[in-house]
Amino acid sequence: MKQLFYNGMIVTGKKGEILKNGYLIVNNGKIEKVGLDFEFKDTDEFTEKVHLGGKWVLPGLINTHGHIGSCLLRGNGDDLPLQEWLQSKMWPMEAKFTEKTVKAGASLAIIEMLKSGTTTFLEMYHLHLDIIGQLVEDSGIRSVISRGMIGHCSIEEQEKKLREACDLSKRLRSMAGGRITTMLAPHAPYTCPPEFLKSVIYEAKKKQLPIHIHLSETEQEVNEHIQKYGKRPVVHLAELGMFDVHTLIAHGVHLDDEELKLLAHFGVAVSHNPTSNLKLGSGIADVPSMLNKNILVSIGTDSAASNNNLDMFQEMRMTALIHKGNKQDPTVVNSETALLMATHNGGRALAIDDIGAIETDKDADFIIVDSSSPHLQPSEHLLSHLVYSASGSDVEQVYVKGKCLVRNKECLTMDEEKIIYEANRAFKRLFYS
Amino acid sequence: MKQLFYNGMIVTGKKGEILKNGYLIVNNGKIEKVGLDFEFKDTDEFTEKVHLGGKWVLPGLINTHGHIGSCLLRGNGDDLPLQEWLQSKMWPMEAKFTEKTVKAGASLAIIEMLKSGTTTFLEMYHLHLDIIGQLVEDSGIRSVISRGMIGHCSIEEQEKKLREACDLSKRLRSMAGGRITTMLAPHAPYTCPPEFLKSVIYEAKKKQLPIHIHLSETEQEVNEHIQKYGKRPVVHLAELGMFDVHTLIAHGVHLDDEELKLLAHFGVAVSHNPTSNLKLGSGIADVPSMLNKNILVSIGTDSAASNNNLDMFQEMRMTALIHKGNKQDPTVVNSETALLMATHNGGRALAIDDIGAIETDKDADFIIVDSSSPHLQPSEHLLSHLVYSASGSDVEQVYVKGKCLVRNKECLTMDEEKIIYEANRAFKRLFYS
Repeated sequence: MKQLFYNGMIVTGKKGEILKNGYLIVNNGKIEKVGLDFEFKDTDEFTEKVHLGGKWVLPGLINTHGHIGSCLLRGNGDDLPLQEWLQSKMWPMEAKFTEKTVKAGASLAIIEMLKSGTTTFLEMYHLHLDIIGQLVEDSGIRSVISRGMIGHCSIEEQEKKLREACDLSKRLRSMAGGRITTMLAPHAPYTCPPEFLKSVIYEAKKKQLPIHIHLSETEQEVNEHIQKYGKRPVVHLAELGMFDVHTLIAHGVHLDDEELKLLAHFGVAVSHNPTSNLKLGSGIADVPSMLNKNILVSIGTDSAASNNNLDMFQEMRMTALIHKGNKQDPTVVNSETALLMATHNGGRALAIDDIGAIETDKDADFIIVDSSSPHLQPSEHLLSHLVYSASGSDVEQVYVKGKCLVRNKECLTMDEEKIIYEANRAFKRLFYS
Repeated sequence: MKQLFYNGMIVTGKKGEILKNGYLIVNNGKIEKVGLDFEFKDTDEFTEKVHLGGKWVLPGLINTHGHIGSCLLRGNGDDLPLQEWLQSKMWPMEAKFTEKTVKAGASLAIIEMLKSGTTTFLEMYHLHLDIIGQLVEDSGIRSVISRGMIGHCSIEEQEKKLREACDLSKRLRSMAGGRITTMLAPHAPYTCPPEFLKSVIYEAKKKQLPIHIHLSETEQEVNEHIQKYGKRPVVHLAELGMFDVHTLIAHGVHLDDEELKLLAHFGVAVSHNPTSNLKLGSGIADVPSMLNKNILVSIGTDSAASNNNLDMFQEMRMTALIHKGNKQDPTVVNSETALLMATHNGGRALAIDDIGAIETDKDADFIIVDSSSPHLQPSEHLLSHLVYSASGSDVEQVYVKGKCLVRNKECLTMDEEKIIYEANRAFKRLFYS
């Protein structure tokens, strides 16, 4: 199975590099060669030849934090204070979730992500994760799945959750031809007692699993943490030994300079979720300082209940814009950096070496953008347009491991009409029950 | 010419109102009736009957600040400090602009705006505005056109510019069947000496023209203004008598409490340009305080050179998000308010009574959104989805004064392929000359 894609504008994912009239050879799902000005020879043997007609090719986008299991709650309560939103809108609904609800929401989220150019997503959820694994297997997308664990419960229940998470990890890693990896996901320092975190860290070391955790999303949780433990959350986690394993934190909105230094020192990765942090009134993470300290920053949408879409183009754009205004400095987080965060850094944050760039020996996870729309003209400055003007609806084709999952803006592996019907039916059942 | 649109979800533009299974009767470009559950009678006589199939109808979006004449400079220099950007990227290019450049850029901008649901835009520019007027006439869009005037020149030149602006105003107001109105647009307090501003105000009063002006976009310009005049810009303009005429200011990022009170007192309207203010590192306008003081706030994209698209859905979304994060309060600028700013408030800010809502006796400027995409499900919460999840690419049909300008996402009045070809050709001529 050898595929050729030629005559395109290839954004390789290396800082700022664009191959005009570039080509790409994919061999059994791996990128074999990337180059300029392809010339046909008699000896060429390709199963598929795609003339790109000048379209833009870039690495598949990587969404490093979300909860697709709750996607049906999109728009179910906006503009509310966090606790009121959780208590009156989110938790009562989630308490009624069944397998069908999670399947309907997760299917909706996956087709939305695929159609808008996301080829890999991280999922932290606590319900019916085998179903999500099955959807990943069937849809062809790539995922890091983690069972979110809240430790506010008895030690027996904590142990049960952790055992579930480990068992699930084992099952999921054998599925989908290696497209699923896993992490252990204690929910947050404010919901997990130190002893429980220690057990999680112990298992993570033993099983060589990375850790994913919400960290310092709101000012209030940080203040309460300091009151309770007499230290800031990052110091607390470092002392517990968490950062001896690869750790990806979500949010990191309220971190002081010492905490940033610790994250840099231990090579902790960050999932920056700018839209969700704005929408819930959490604040604006200090990404420019993180970048200055060489912290690995990737991008996540968080859930559709707090975003409210899963469009990584819009998230890149927000990332490139928000810090300029917040710091009153237009030079921070330029377009190259934002694209890097959503691709190469995403792969590293998820501890998956094979993705995040269009280069030899990487897996062939890439997307093709239809560059013919008015908002992408004049077409000269494509890097700028991809970050500052494009949106997910400009994505025309999506490939994961060389397999075409979206063609001409239609998903080939999922039944969109059925998914939308089921999502609305499941939501109505929830809402009016 | 009587048109019926029925069986849709109509967002009327009145605060939060949604008519489920609503209908809309348009008579010669005016909305004659809006109601629920239309029932056909034998006596009905409609030239056109449109079954909306549950799609979402809302007032056409109103973009209250921009410079479409420079649209070809989209992406031509991002991530640069303001002065470096202006001096190295914008001004040298604009100095080479010809009629063809402006026509190519403005055509591109208009088709982008129409396709993404904008039915009215304000234009402040200084070159070839008759051409822009002609494009408005031909395309069917609605516009407020103002000749931007920089007063850093001799008195003779100032007078010439003002005369040009007044003559242009007269010519444009006779075009396009009333779809063009005009304002007088002194560029900014920092580029217009007080005596020149007085002349402009005098003409505005005499000719009953509103005024449009950039105001307090950057901290630096405000500081320099205080140094030069010993007072803040709003106080300065108030003392000059500007606010005796209807005034719309763009930006208003750096205003103190006294200035906000003055704007409220004089009924001055604001065009909030959140994306442009972020991208240029200008800062974040204090919109929640403006709203608390009942200042009329509308939304603008500014130019594609500092945004970089003209998608008013994305601008609404940014408006609803940015202030929540900046104030760490998720209750500020809710979805209803953001939609109101982009519709009803836009009409008032532009001093056009006939637009901005779907109600009897307004002009029939409305758009139809295809609600079938994954990111708009579950479809229950449409107001939330319109603000927090939709983008311009969801717009399917666009009507201005009852005339269909976009159908099935294709613009009926402009030749998209030709416009894109000309835009790229014109840009290359500029860039490589």
